[in-house]
Amino acid sequence: MAKPNERGITPQSEDFSAWYNELVVRAELADHGPVRGTMVIRPYGYRIWELLSAELDRHIKATGHENAYFPLLIPESHLRREAEHVEGFAPELAIVTHAGGEDLEEPLVLRPTSETVVGEMFARWIGSYRDLPLRINQWANVVRWELRPRLFLRTTEFLWQEGHTAHASEDEAIAEMLVAADFYQAVAEDCAAMPVLVGDKTPAERFAGAVRTISLEAMMRDGRALQAATSHYLGTNFAAAFGIDYTGADGVRALCHTASWGMSTRMVGGVIMTHGDDRGLILPPKIAPHQVVVVPIGRDDDLGPVTASAEALARELTDRGVRVYVDTRQQVSPGFKFNDWELRGVPVRVELGPRDLATGSAVVVDRLSGAKIPQLLAEVATTMPARLAAFQEALFRRARDFRDAHTVVVNSFDDLAPAVAFGFAQTLLCGDPACEAAIQERTGATPRCVPRDADPEAGPCVVCGRPADYGRRLVFGRSY
Amino acid sequence: MAKPNERGITPQSEDFSAWYNELVVRAELADHGPVRGTMVIRPYGYRIWELLSAELDRHIKATGHENAYFPLLIPESHLRREAEHVEGFAPELAIVTHAGGEDLEEPLVLRPTSETVVGEMFARWIGSYRDLPLRINQWANVVRWELRPRLFLRTTEFLWQEGHTAHASEDEAIAEMLVAADFYQAVAEDCAAMPVLVGDKTPAERFAGAVRTISLEAMMRDGRALQAATSHYLGTNFAAAFGIDYTGADGVRALCHTASWGMSTRMVGGVIMTHGDDRGLILPPKIAPHQVVVVPIGRDDDLGPVTASAEALARELTDRGVRVYVDTRQQVSPGFKFNDWELRGVPVRVELGPRDLATGSAVVVDRLSGAKIPQLLAEVATTMPARLAAFQEALFRRARDFRDAHTVVVNSFDDLAPAVAFGFAQTLLCGDPACEAAIQERTGATPRCVPRDADPEAGPCVVCGRPADYGRRLVFGRSY
Repeated sequence: MAKPNERGITPQSEDFSAWYNELVVRAELADHGPVRGTMVIRPYGYRIWELLSAELDRHIKATGHENAYFPLLIPESHLRREAEHVEGFAPELAIVTHAGGEDLEEPLVLRPTSETVVGEMFARWIGSYRDLPLRINQWANVVRWELRPRLFLRTTEFLWQEGHTAHASEDEAIAEMLVAADFYQAVAEDCAAMPVLVGDKTPAERFAGAVRTISLEAMMRDGRALQAATSHYLGTNFAAAFGIDYTGADGVRALCHTASWGMSTRMVGGVIMTHGDDRGLILPPKIAPHQVVVVPIGRDDDLGPVTASAEALARELTDRGVRVYVDTRQQVSPGFKFNDWELRGVPVRVELGPRDLATGSAVVVDRLSGAKIPQLLAEVATTMPARLAAFQEALFRRARDFRDAHTVVVNSFDDLAPAVAFGFAQTLLCGDPACEAAIQERTGATPRCVPRDADPEAGPCVVCGRPADYGRRLVFGRSY
Repeated sequence: MAKPNERGITPQSEDFSAWYNELVVRAELADHGPVRGTMVIRPYGYRIWELLSAELDRHIKATGHENAYFPLLIPESHLRREAEHVEGFAPELAIVTHAGGEDLEEPLVLRPTSETVVGEMFARWIGSYRDLPLRINQWANVVRWELRPRLFLRTTEFLWQEGHTAHASEDEAIAEMLVAADFYQAVAEDCAAMPVLVGDKTPAERFAGAVRTISLEAMMRDGRALQAATSHYLGTNFAAAFGIDYTGADGVRALCHTASWGMSTRMVGGVIMTHGDDRGLILPPKIAPHQVVVVPIGRDDDLGPVTASAEALARELTDRGVRVYVDTRQQVSPGFKFNDWELRGVPVRVELGPRDLATGSAVVVDRLSGAKIPQLLAEVATTMPARLAAFQEALFRRARDFRDAHTVVVNSFDDLAPAVAFGFAQTLLCGDPACEAAIQERTGATPRCVPRDADPEAGPCVVCGRPADYGRRLVFGRSY
């Protein structure tokens, strides 16, 4: 095991996994709940999720969806109606067998996802083509029993939103799937500063019950892939299982085409692993609980005026829409505070001491570059929005450059293992699941997606040499 | 059974209970889930909850609380640590016995409320007096097995927020309980236009494990009481059970004093029953999904210009911060639309036909008074914010007047039953639980609370004639 540094966390560069586990707890993002695999999201971590989900909710509403809420408890028999779906989720289910002091006649499943209960209700609500499209979203907790739990990344319970829509035609349902993929990309890239590859999953990697699955794949700083969100075209599979049908304008009864899509608290784990460094978190300003922390420095008589000045600056920043926190803790030193806020990934720190005050200046410290920039105190607030925007942009660029620097074109099976040891490999592949399986067995990597913006390309499958499928290169990587 | 009127719902005046049950479903606020007692909150109902909870969240944050998230699943043994608490909740618990394909070693309870799991974490997080006060709120679902379920009012799963705080002293924890009661009152009265009596519960009516419980009690239009929210001072009961203690500035270890408080989706049921009438819902503008609905009226050639004008008006209203919806449905008549939006409780309807357009006017219809007010089209948008504010105020006044008109002072046991047959009775009572029980047995009414703004008063207990306790009159009522 690597040794924790002075901040009490193992450096990222020595042991990425230990760094992550320690940082999540030390930065007070989350803690382990009393039941194995459960997570307590602490205020600092929850605020990141609040800011991220508020932005996502804005996109969801702007594209014509309405929020609703469906029950947590689903009859076990309902889940069995879609065969592939239950097969995919059965091993992860938690089951209520007893309630209100009695054994239940039928066991109830805690939703692992809500296609089945939503399907049941859609069937009840949809009568004619005039009821379509029906486009609903839910913010909820779901439960999936995890064998190897990890805070934010794999917890037995997590928070997410799940969109569920019904349409008259395949084209409309596919367009819906793409709309969701688009706003997920916008939230990941513009908000979380996390560049994503967006494209179809191979059949073997699709959601249980889906006809098409589009995923958003990001690269973490250990070279592994993280699936940031997924969007599914479900064909008429769930419609047939639950009787979601409608009478067309022509009077003919037909099955609906449905879609579903989701993004979860896993994204917080993705943000940590996309941007963090040896010193701790680095948070994108758009989702940072505190965008700026002001640390007043001084003793005895000096402290009063310095603190007053720090608070005046904070008011100025607040007026400009900046989320700011003044750290007035008495029991710890300025040095401790600097380390603490670096660990917690605050984008900009402002240090303000008696000498600064005397010269009407302050020291502005950038968490990403570490640069200490002396600035006129009167200009700190006016320039801050632009500084934060530049920080956000630099963070995105850094992550994209990192990903691109660790992505290689691979044309032979032997080159795959070293390529995915750290990063992504772009390969041509035939449609045979056996070739995917061969790659996974040799390298531990799976096909992440077929990026939709990749150039069309033909050629031989990297495994078997038969003509490649998908019309372009797939991206392989080892994943979370 | 009373007969449904032309809107398909039983008139409130004929059968309040049938009116409620039918209206909730017909207005598409909620629907029954597949599992008995569960509820699907449909977009129209969920939007009311969203608007209400956004306002409540604003108050919660403004008073220094931070949001967090605790696990749904709690080990059964944890719940047993606080004896009164488990006794109160045991009959309502739903229990997971099986997960991930195996029987669990220890059964897990679905949280009926989170004092126990929060207590466990607070004990871990709190070390010294510097960590206090700790003031956290959670937005979550909870599960309580209901024998007589009813949409919004009693469902086996409901949504709520629950605040949990820890303090160094009794005084601070009680002050916290009062802060929560204050913002609940603000949300109930200012947002939901629901006047509430705020005061202590009698010992028999307290939350399981609480030392003091303050409740907010509203009167529904059938004269029954609805508990809109509660706030508890928990003493050191949970602190002792879970080891929530701290080291004081003097180095001495002491137990924390804790508080908790909650408001739920039950409030949506309260809004329905506080304001609705024979024609359907009446929604307070502040929480109405659509504050204004514009109905363009016309056929053939007329329809285009009228619809364009309706949409221009909608843009003007949107610019003024009004939530507006233009009902352009082709397949139903204007008359159908009028009834529909009355049923759904939209505060203001604007009717716009070809003749209105020719004279540059519109007809503005007030849902509360039913008044049809001709108005210059150019002035509809500019006057709307004031009109909505007046509507909100009138709704609150109407509810308060209704409550006051159905509240009587009762000084003899015999007068109690007729008083609480429809409404509230203000009585003096000794502290003996037997006297409360005697009233409940005779009248079906329970002590709702001891309103904190009631005048101090002494005198004999209405049941036994011994000197009254509580220093003022209690309010009795039959409750939901």
